[in-house]
Amino acid sequence: MHNGFRHTGVTGLAKGRRVSTQLESYVAGRWRAGADHGEPVLDAVTGEEVVRVSSRGIDLAALVAHAREVGGPAVRRLTFHERAGLLKQLALELGRHKDEFYALSLHTGATRRDSMVDIDGGIGTLFSYASKGKRELPDDTVVLDGALEPLGKGGTFVGQHLYASRPGVAVQINAFNFPVWGMLEKLAPAFLAGLPSIVKPGTQTAYLTEAVVRRIIASEILPEGSLQLLCGSAGTLLDELGEQDSVAFTGSAHTARILRDHPAVLRRGVRLGVEADSLNCSILGPDVRPEDPELDLFVKGVVTEMTVKAGQKCTAIRRVLVPEAMAGTVIDAISARLARITVGNPADDGVRMGALASLGQRDEVRKAVEALRASADIVYGDPAHVDVVGADAERGAFLSPVLLRARPGAAEPHEVEPFGPVSTVLTYGSLEEAVDLAARGRGSLVASLVTHDPQVGREVTRGLAPWHGRVLVLDRDDAAESTGHGSPLPMLVHGGPGRAGGGEELGGIRGVLHHMQRTAVQGSPDMLTAVTGRWTTGSRHLVDDVHPFRKSLAELRIGDTVQTATRTVTLEDIDHFAEFTGDTFYAHTDPEAAAANPFFGGIVAHGYLVVSLAAGLFVEPNPGPVLANFGVDNLRFLTPVRVGDTIRVTLTVKQITPRTSADYGEVRWEADVTNQDGEQVAAYDVLTLVAKTAG
Amino acid sequence: MHNGFRHTGVTGLAKGRRVSTQLESYVAGRWRAGADHGEPVLDAVTGEEVVRVSSRGIDLAALVAHAREVGGPAVRRLTFHERAGLLKQLALELGRHKDEFYALSLHTGATRRDSMVDIDGGIGTLFSYASKGKRELPDDTVVLDGALEPLGKGGTFVGQHLYASRPGVAVQINAFNFPVWGMLEKLAPAFLAGLPSIVKPGTQTAYLTEAVVRRIIASEILPEGSLQLLCGSAGTLLDELGEQDSVAFTGSAHTARILRDHPAVLRRGVRLGVEADSLNCSILGPDVRPEDPELDLFVKGVVTEMTVKAGQKCTAIRRVLVPEAMAGTVIDAISARLARITVGNPADDGVRMGALASLGQRDEVRKAVEALRASADIVYGDPAHVDVVGADAERGAFLSPVLLRARPGAAEPHEVEPFGPVSTVLTYGSLEEAVDLAARGRGSLVASLVTHDPQVGREVTRGLAPWHGRVLVLDRDDAAESTGHGSPLPMLVHGGPGRAGGGEELGGIRGVLHHMQRTAVQGSPDMLTAVTGRWTTGSRHLVDDVHPFRKSLAELRIGDTVQTATRTVTLEDIDHFAEFTGDTFYAHTDPEAAAANPFFGGIVAHGYLVVSLAAGLFVEPNPGPVLANFGVDNLRFLTPVRVGDTIRVTLTVKQITPRTSADYGEVRWEADVTNQDGEQVAAYDVLTLVAKTAG
Repeated sequence: MHNGFRHTGVTGLAKGRRVSTQLESYVAGRWRAGADHGEPVLDAVTGEEVVRVSSRGIDLAALVAHAREVGGPAVRRLTFHERAGLLKQLALELGRHKDEFYALSLHTGATRRDSMVDIDGGIGTLFSYASKGKRELPDDTVVLDGALEPLGKGGTFVGQHLYASRPGVAVQINAFNFPVWGMLEKLAPAFLAGLPSIVKPGTQTAYLTEAVVRRIIASEILPEGSLQLLCGSAGTLLDELGEQDSVAFTGSAHTARILRDHPAVLRRGVRLGVEADSLNCSILGPDVRPEDPELDLFVKGVVTEMTVKAGQKCTAIRRVLVPEAMAGTVIDAISARLARITVGNPADDGVRMGALASLGQRDEVRKAVEALRASADIVYGDPAHVDVVGADAERGAFLSPVLLRARPGAAEPHEVEPFGPVSTVLTYGSLEEAVDLAARGRGSLVASLVTHDPQVGREVTRGLAPWHGRVLVLDRDDAAESTGHGSPLPMLVHGGPGRAGGGEELGGIRGVLHHMQRTAVQGSPDMLTAVTGRWTTGSRHLVDDVHPFRKSLAELRIGDTVQTATRTVTLEDIDHFAEFTGDTFYAHTDPEAAAANPFFGGIVAHGYLVVSLAAGLFVEPNPGPVLANFGVDNLRFLTPVRVGDTIRVTLTVKQITPRTSADYGEVRWEADVTNQDGEQVAAYDVLTLVAKTAG
Repeated sequence: MHNGFRHTGVTGLAKGRRVSTQLESYVAGRWRAGADHGEPVLDAVTGEEVVRVSSRGIDLAALVAHAREVGGPAVRRLTFHERAGLLKQLALELGRHKDEFYALSLHTGATRRDSMVDIDGGIGTLFSYASKGKRELPDDTVVLDGALEPLGKGGTFVGQHLYASRPGVAVQINAFNFPVWGMLEKLAPAFLAGLPSIVKPGTQTAYLTEAVVRRIIASEILPEGSLQLLCGSAGTLLDELGEQDSVAFTGSAHTARILRDHPAVLRRGVRLGVEADSLNCSILGPDVRPEDPELDLFVKGVVTEMTVKAGQKCTAIRRVLVPEAMAGTVIDAISARLARITVGNPADDGVRMGALASLGQRDEVRKAVEALRASADIVYGDPAHVDVVGADAERGAFLSPVLLRARPGAAEPHEVEPFGPVSTVLTYGSLEEAVDLAARGRGSLVASLVTHDPQVGREVTRGLAPWHGRVLVLDRDDAAESTGHGSPLPMLVHGGPGRAGGGEELGGIRGVLHHMQRTAVQGSPDMLTAVTGRWTTGSRHLVDDVHPFRKSLAELRIGDTVQTATRTVTLEDIDHFAEFTGDTFYAHTDPEAAAANPFFGGIVAHGYLVVSLAAGLFVEPNPGPVLANFGVDNLRFLTPVRVGDTIRVTLTVKQITPRTSADYGEVRWEADVTNQDGEQVAAYDVLTLVAKTAG
């Protein structure tokens, strides 16, 4: 069924063969063409037809049913670590085909730098999720959330939140501007969460998405049904969705509104996440003087965001906020730098900015500039004319970068979105006014602030935070490593309130959990241990003749326990430990001063002495499966240990996590140190590495 | 302006004076009546008019503006700990007026037990949030989320997620069934989150909400503007809302749809949270035999949920799922228990179930029972008749409990919601079928499972989780402490997917964070320290002549650092520590065996020795502001310490948290232990208690 290249689609393009044909969708295990000739998609640079796209006649019910009945169950049979392993394989596989994707990307108008953001950025997102999935998720199919909640004084009734996979389908409606990254940044978290994905790419650049999907399908790395592709109109796809399904949409606020209004969303509880273009701003701090390096950083940032992807980024800087006194300086510097940007055929060396995605997009941007001119004046560029290198300026969707300066009280810059190489400079007086102007965008994906003053950084960032999904503070200290204003990163949330859609994507594991259902489970400790697969404090201990340090990972069971012998702590022990370690804190050495301490009222043992003696009690000294103690979590000293107190330890297997690519795994133990009165003296988790087998 | 009782409203009712008058709303610092005579609200038991309600003429723009401009800023000037302190005061204040609320509650048809759920449950929720706010939130106005994310290899560019308060308004549209709890469970998390609340109670029982709000306003505990009340229709309230505002709605799916479709939600990014009545189920495990205590627990649970609040709870059990063979036994047992439920005037001793909220509600329930009868047969009760104690069965909204048994393949029990004392018994074969039947409710607030078999508990709970916000597993072990199927708890999430509305409330601090904006902040470590108010690894250390252990909480600064002397670890040290503590693990004592260990390759120092020596290096021994070390977090041993290695410690103030009601606070220190090559040997946080002043 994995007939990856039986139909060549447009992958021939990458090899220089210009075969205009119809893109296919990948539905229920087969590549399928639309039932009509489809709409033509034109090369952004040459205006020639690249491919035709149609989804007519595609069986949308079969598409969703295949995801629900075949793909979903197949993904959910895997643990998080297994899913993460597949994402890593996939990243490696796509890396091997990058040249093909780069070649196709030229047709979208993208320069090599633009393609890198899209293609390498997408593959990097897969790697990041593969890594986070292994390091931050358990080797299980549910994720525990937060601490155990005691629900009764007796400890017999407790609560634990967990995240479970939904038996649903993740529909992903992507924008045209990032045909590779846009797909992969949604696919990776959904796949980790146990959901099958149905990808609907932006039609204008769908041929690049299709080429990537062909490689994925041909590789057979992902379980069949976990990724399907719908090229062309989404038609009535949402009609097929229900309570456990979700739609993640990236694109215009207009389309977002239509989706929000769909009966599936209004009536059937389909979860809709929206990431919409927003009027992001960059703010120059009032502390920055013309001679400071921050001025140059600011100007570079603005020009980069205006010109990368020809400004067709939902995170691009549309509003440039500068102190009144700096406006002239900033405009001059931006203009000088823009003048060095060569526009033209992205295949040509030296071209710094390619074409917009289509002539239609160019028309839209020109209209937006016209609207902005109601309250702003063009200070750089001409929307009607641009000098072009290596291409026909009329047939390709080329446009000059355009910088405007807003007149006082301008409204349009806060309302009009030019989805192209266009920005508007606005001026502010106070920091408060800067924040207020930023907020007039009514919610954005990102704001950047260029300042070297920590107080400015604190005040403005805290003011911007409720209006933004991401805030970048740029200065001389982080500039060399900064990834810039416009780059969403897989480990940071991407989204924003209000105009930006109110959604949240990425953010590492946060982006995975968004796809899952959080549920509070209440029960006895024993029942919660069974449900969660993790030891719940208060459960029955399993004690047998074998010290658990002598059991391999394969032999250990959740709940295996060692109940140690006791040790009485003497004044000599404490004195000696103080002298030996040098920790002569008065509470351990000076009876009179210790008596005056509000918590101790007399000499007490060092906390570090208690845990050291506890280890002496629970350790099994001989070589065996336990290889190392690599850490301790949540250590709390609960009752002081006084001279003559007798302690013992209960050490219990809490969690077992085999490592996929090693012959050992991690075992988390609950350590419970008590005194002769049964009072809890110390509680903590001990982290060890344990061999998988006894050998 | 706090003219709490100038207008008596209906509070006179509590004292036995039946003064039917118009309820007032609390708007912009004044109590205001509607501009017309309003609609009458009738006593659920006697059918007499209790009060009239109207919001006509209330200035909704002023209401929202007052919250936005007065209440919000006043709340956000307080830290989380200060807000938590006010919630605790409020809980104590309301506790002093409980009798008044209980007396009013009788008019709603509630028995004393019903009122306890509403009134004491509401006050308990305030206490819970007060406590969680102090223990689990920082004494600040932003909350850090997750770990620091390194964004570059050099450590100069890092990311930190934080939650910031929105400069918006929280509108809370409550249902009639919990006039006190319903308000307080929404108010508490919103207030903690820094939002002013506008409460719109369910009209049928608004007089009880109004009485509570009068007490709150009169107490002057909350800042003016942080709580306003709108009695009657919400009118065009949503038209006043925008990007930073939210609406939390509890009620019917029908009203939820209208809200979802509102332009404020569709176009202006108003966040809408919905908690809707759902078709919750309780499942009897296949392991339960007639003689097991679990059968009785199951039957009691069903009867309780049918009769508490006369079944008018969004969490009530509407579907009773039992193994085919147990259906007769279960129906007999439920019926026998229902027969002992006395229905009547809740003011009468011995009455176990009161009235529905209104005659209209009773009509609705009767219609629902009629619809259910299409595929189910009544096995207990008569919707047309009930014997009533101490009241007129016709004038009061009384209804008999009704139990139905579904015929095979019944659809209606999964679709029809009788919001009253009505449940339907359905039978299942396999565990899978039980989960499938539960899922046919298309998303519920809660499911309960009664089983004593851990495997049944695991399989069914994991199957139910994606369809439910809460799952209760009940058995002999937790029954005595269980709070039951129908009780949302402040520390557990309350909400559910699909039909249940797709929202999430409560859940401890989770419910607070839902009201805030999560933002990823990128910058240099120094800048993030300034923004977050917490030491960011990689920031500049502050070193002066005074050892930071000699500084009081008032004197300590984030970043204060002690750079210790060094200590060389000898073989003698290791041998001695092994002997002294008893920790003779072979990696510390047996050169040959240690050499074979895959991580060590020779004798290494105990991790506990390293941290003990580290303490010896950083401690300042004399009595001073540092009172105690109460714990250690996130200790990781990163590089083995070998014989002859020389270690030193950098200890830095990371976070300072004064305790409100003590003369000390918590200081979290970052401990960084390195060896002679600058390699990190161990990293952890040290937690201490430090006096607020030097005295």
